[in-house]
Formats: sequence, structure tokens, C-alpha cells
Amino acid sequence: MNNFIAYNPVKLHFGRQVVRDLGKNASHLGNKALLVYGGGSVLKNGSYRDTMEQLEQYGVQVVEFSGIKPNPRVEDVREATRTGREYDVEMVVAAGGGSVIDSAKIIAICIAEGCDAWDVMKGRHEPQNALPLIAVLTLAATGTEMNGVAVLQNPETREKIGHKNDLIYPRHAFLDPAYTLSVPENHTAYGIVDLTAHCLEAWFGEGDASLSDRFVIAIIREALEYGPALMKDSGNYELRARIMWAATNALNNLTMYGRKSGDWGVHALGHILSFLYDTPHGATLSIIFPAWMHLMRERAGERITELGKALFEVSSVEGTINGFKSFFSSLGSPVRCSETGIDELKKEEILELMNRNRAEGFNYAISDKEREELLSYMW
Amino acid sequence: MNNFIAYNPVKLHFGRQVVRDLGKNASHLGNKALLVYGGGSVLKNGSYRDTMEQLEQYGVQVVEFSGIKPNPRVEDVREATRTGREYDVEMVVAAGGGSVIDSAKIIAICIAEGCDAWDVMKGRHEPQNALPLIAVLTLAATGTEMNGVAVLQNPETREKIGHKNDLIYPRHAFLDPAYTLSVPENHTAYGIVDLTAHCLEAWFGEGDASLSDRFVIAIIREALEYGPALMKDSGNYELRARIMWAATNALNNLTMYGRKSGDWGVHALGHILSFLYDTPHGATLSIIFPAWMHLMRERAGERITELGKALFEVSSVEGTINGFKSFFSSLGSPVRCSETGIDELKKEEILELMNRNRAEGFNYAISDKEREELLSYMW
Repeated sequence: MNNFIAYNPVKLHFGRQVVRDLGKNASHLGNKALLVYGGGSVLKNGSYRDTMEQLEQYGVQVVEFSGIKPNPRVEDVREATRTGREYDVEMVVAAGGGSVIDSAKIIAICIAEGCDAWDVMKGRHEPQNALPLIAVLTLAATGTEMNGVAVLQNPETREKIGHKNDLIYPRHAFLDPAYTLSVPENHTAYGIVDLTAHCLEAWFGEGDASLSDRFVIAIIREALEYGPALMKDSGNYELRARIMWAATNALNNLTMYGRKSGDWGVHALGHILSFLYDTPHGATLSIIFPAWMHLMRERAGERITELGKALFEVSSVEGTINGFKSFFSSLGSPVRCSETGIDELKKEEILELMNRNRAEGFNYAISDKEREELLSYMW
Repeated sequence: MNNFIAYNPVKLHFGRQVVRDLGKNASHLGNKALLVYGGGSVLKNGSYRDTMEQLEQYGVQVVEFSGIKPNPRVEDVREATRTGREYDVEMVVAAGGGSVIDSAKIIAICIAEGCDAWDVMKGRHEPQNALPLIAVLTLAATGTEMNGVAVLQNPETREKIGHKNDLIYPRHAFLDPAYTLSVPENHTAYGIVDLTAHCLEAWFGEGDASLSDRFVIAIIREALEYGPALMKDSGNYELRARIMWAATNALNNLTMYGRKSGDWGVHALGHILSFLYDTPHGATLSIIFPAWMHLMRERAGERITELGKALFEVSSVEGTINGFKSFFSSLGSPVRCSETGIDELKKEEILELMNRNRAEGFNYAISDKEREELLSYMW
């Protein structure tokens, strides 16, 4: 076991109608909030209405910023920051999925510091402050509601990268599974893939951490048991709740304690597909993880097999890979690029950007040559 | 799943020599500390010396209060409170095991509020403040280092009861498994029993929480795998580390999310034995849990069997009970009162106090008649 600090200050409110506790908690943090959200889904699922009602009821003034896009972009964060500073807001409230909350985290830093968002992402500016952040989650997937990480992309520099910082843990997160009842089939599936992939990044990380390994298995088993059930019964609150809570635990530090790091190679590789073709994050992961495991069949053979034994009662690398492929396919998430309409002719373009971004991972870092091999398994 | 709040603000520093980060963190909390500890073990295992060095190095004045006993008593807490108030300390630093840290939690409240410790325990005084607390853990067992619970006993009223409060989460906890290398065999075993029992109290709690169930299984498996190994190799840092981290997770809220409560009947029953005969807490649990499961063979039969399937690959209540009995015995912890020297003639005395304290549990609350039956399985 490596030395580690176990820490997660988020107060996470989980369950039916928990947003009724938002207003009071927000009023302790300030009088004026920037409410950040995306497109129409929060208007449909009730989270926007409930959040607004709460803020009004407790006398918190609201300045709205909408239009955050999936695979969130730094220019939207810059614009939201200008709005927030203009109106002198004292907190940020984010209603939506990972893209909205990730954006809100960097917005909370940039409003407090008056700095540029990309300087923060690139580590050129080291923030000392952030406005307090409240997250109202409407999509079970990223775990951002209970961690200190944000990912943004920059079309100008052709990068999609993450920033990690204790300042950007939400003060409060509100998770009402009922808000996810209207999430469409494909995004429900991508969320289940995403939470599974977060567990896998931990599993393939550096360091021998037996309890964290067992937690990884526990969370993936939730996904295996309740994921396919949810795909058949998407209006089931209880199933939505189990997947939502599993997704939070897949990336709230719990699976990382005692490791030096996660691997994160597959995420880095997936970000390239999202950047180039706006492929949904979860879809990139269900395509790349099986290919990556095949690439790693020797370097990480034992570790892959150990996973297969615990999850699928198989005792080979190929058995494990097939287990995950079947699982992802059963959800309706693609396991080949061709399923998403990315033509094989794009291989060179993808490889070039993967290499330029050094999409490699920490524990099983891959070379340019291995990236080329990886791509040969992706169609 | 029940609604719940997931929250744990403790910053827990885990691993070799982590106490070197204590002084700096303490100095942010104040200039004068009450250092609370028990008997001689902290002098032998290095934790006292390291903590003192850190506090001195960072200019934190130290007022010492030693002599906290196992199964901690309210009168010691009162005396420590007087000392702390007399010297106007600004924080409490606890070095030791569960008894010391539990005492320090109530001391931290009583110094801040000027109230009586037993009034806090009995809920007659509702505290609004507590001094900040730092815990240096030297025994893997209770999980108190990462929760908001403290248990004290009062010889006058013949009670041993718990207090739960967000105010008493330690600000920082320092867990260096090396400090536990010198823990004697019996207390090492009791710690492993204690962590297992905390998982069981969660398992038998009220509410259907699948991920929390899987976490329970994960943590008990750590105990099953590394507990007996540690008993044979008590100087092994890595095994000490795994048991220490498992013990923290067994009672840091993680296994409770989504449940209405744990059961806690066995703990309540065990406290009576500790109160009457100063039986070590872990020993009371390894005696009572098998008897309690036997008592519950019908009321909780399915739930007991589910546990046995997951842990021991058995498919009956008796198989599960035997699994736990073998496990506890293999550690050297008693599974019958006779092994601890409590004579069967004491049955009536025990029953009388159990009934008077209404030691019953929340989910499978037991009657006077059932307590009598339970006792018949304890010799």
C-alpha cells in the first residue's frame, strides 16, 4: 500500500426530493448565485424548476448562464466567468451532468481569481480560491459531483485535459435519481460504461491496494447487475438510484486509496475521439477499453485475468475482454468505431492527434507504436 | 434505498511516518493543545514522541492528560475537561486507540461548551460547538478516527452508551500502521473482531442498500484474508496496514449509506459485559455475534445465509455461524463466555442489566425473553 490522504469534503444529499434542502444550504454560502446549466434537459426533468424555487424561497438572487455543451469547451467557461464577475456572484450552482458541473468548477475558480480558464487547466495559473459550488446532478456517469476534478476541451489548441484541485469539490451535491428517469437510452448506457471505466482505470493503476481493488469489484458488480436491468426498465427509480450511487463511488477517491495513481490511458485516448468527432465520452470508453486490454494482454495479462475471475468467472484475458464487450454491447454502447460511424480511413488522423497529445496513461504508459496497434483493434 | 446524506469531512493521513504532517496542520488550528492519551503503549510505540516533537516544532503548546482507561469512563472525561478549560486549550490531540479518541471527542465538546459530559451522552445537552480534534491512531479497531461517534460508560448509572454528532469528526487523523506493530496478540485479534462486527451491524441494519452490502462483504473479506495472516506475522507492516485501513472503512459511514440504520443490538449487548466485567469490547462481540445469529436463525435466516454464501461458500444459517466462529477462534478471540472466565452463574446479573438498559438493537430489536434465550447460547 502506498501512503495516501483520504479526504472528500462533499456533503452529498441522495434520494427522492433532496433538492428541498438546497435553498437553506445555499443561503449560508451567499446572496447571489450564478446558475449554470446546459440545454433543455434540466427544463424537462424538473431540476431547473426545483433549484430556482429553492434559491428564490431562501432569497438567493440568481444570474443564469445556459448553453454548456457536452464535451465542454473552454470558451463557454470564459463567457460564464465574465457573466459571473459582471454580476458579482458569490457562489456557483450547477444543474446538469458532468459537462455542466466540470465547467462550473472551473468557472468557480476563474470568478474568484479573475484568471483565464485555460491557464488553470494547463497549470500555468495555480488557483488559491474558488467560489463555493453546489451541484444538482441529472445524469449518472462521471462522479464529478463528489470529486475535485474537471475536464475541458480547447478547440484552438486541440486538447481535452483535466484539472484536479481540492478547491473545486462541491460544497453540496444533490442527487435525486428521479431527475435521471428521463435520460435517453444511449446516455443511460454511456453513463453505465463511464462508471465501469472509472473503476477499470483504478484497477489498472499503480500500487497494491487490496481494499480498493475489492471496492472496484463491488462497484462494477452493481453496474453488471443493475445496468442491463435498467436498460430494460428505464423508468424504475430504484434501478436509477443504484446506478447513480454506483457512479458516484466509481470516482469519489474511494477506489484510489493506497494506489499511486489510476492508469487513465483509455480516458486520454477516448478524449481524442470526443475531440475529433464529438463522440460521447462513454462511447469512446466502451470502444477503447476492450482494445486496450487486448493490447495489454501480455503486459497486464495477470491483472486482466484476475478481473475476469472476479466478475465473469472466466480465467483468461480473452474471456475477460469478451465479458466486458458483451456487457457494453448489452447496454447498447459501441465496442467498435464502425458502430459510431467513424470511418477506418480516419485512423491516421486519430493516431496523429493521439500521439501529439501523448495519450498514454500512467501505469501502463503506451508508445506511439502501441497506439498504432491499438487502433488496429478498434474497427 | 433510503434517502441519505453522504458526508465525512475527516482528512485522514495514512501510511509510514505520516505524523510528520501533524505539526503544520495542528498549528493552523490553534496555539495550545490538550494532548490526551492512555497508559504506556503510546510511550512505547513512538506515537507520543512523534506527536510531541511535531507540536513543539510548530510552536503548539501542550497540556497533557493521560490515564484514559479501556472502556472509557465519564469521570476521566470530566477531569480532562477541567484541565483543558483551566489551561484554555484551543484544540484536542488524542493519541491512542478507540477509548482515547472517543474520550477526546467528548472532551472537545465539553471544553468548548462548558457542559457536563454525561449530559451530552444522554442528549440532555445539545452541543453547538467543539474544539478541533486531531487523532493519532495506534490500534486498528473502532473506526472512531474517521467518524462522528463516541462511546463512554458511567459507573454511577451503570450505562455504556454512544453519542453521534457531526461536531466530533476529527479534523485530521494520522494512521501510521507502524504504531500498531507492537499491539499485543489479544488486542490485535479483538480489533479484527471489532471491524468485522461493525460490518455485521451494518449488514443486519434496516434498508435495502446493495452497494453498501457489497462494501460490507469487501471489508469482511479483507479481515478474513489478512486477519489470520497477521496473527501469524504480527510484525508485518503491510498486513498491519491492510487491517488498519479495513477497520477505518468498517465504520466511516460507507457501509451505512442507503440504510435507515445499522442494527447495533450486539454492540449494545456487548457493552453490558464490558461494563460488568471489563471484558474487552472485541471479545464481547466474538462471543455474542454467533449467539445472536443463532437467536435470529428464523427472523433473519435469509440474510444470515446470504452472508454465508458470499463469505464462506455455505448455504445455511448454521454454516454461516460456524464460519464466523471458526474465524473468531482462529484469531484467538473467545466465542463463549466461559473462555473469558465469566461464570455461568452470572447469567442472571447479566440479564438483569441487559434488560434494564434495553439492549435490543434497531432492526431486529429483541425482547426480554429473547435476551434470556440469547444468554443460553453464550456458554
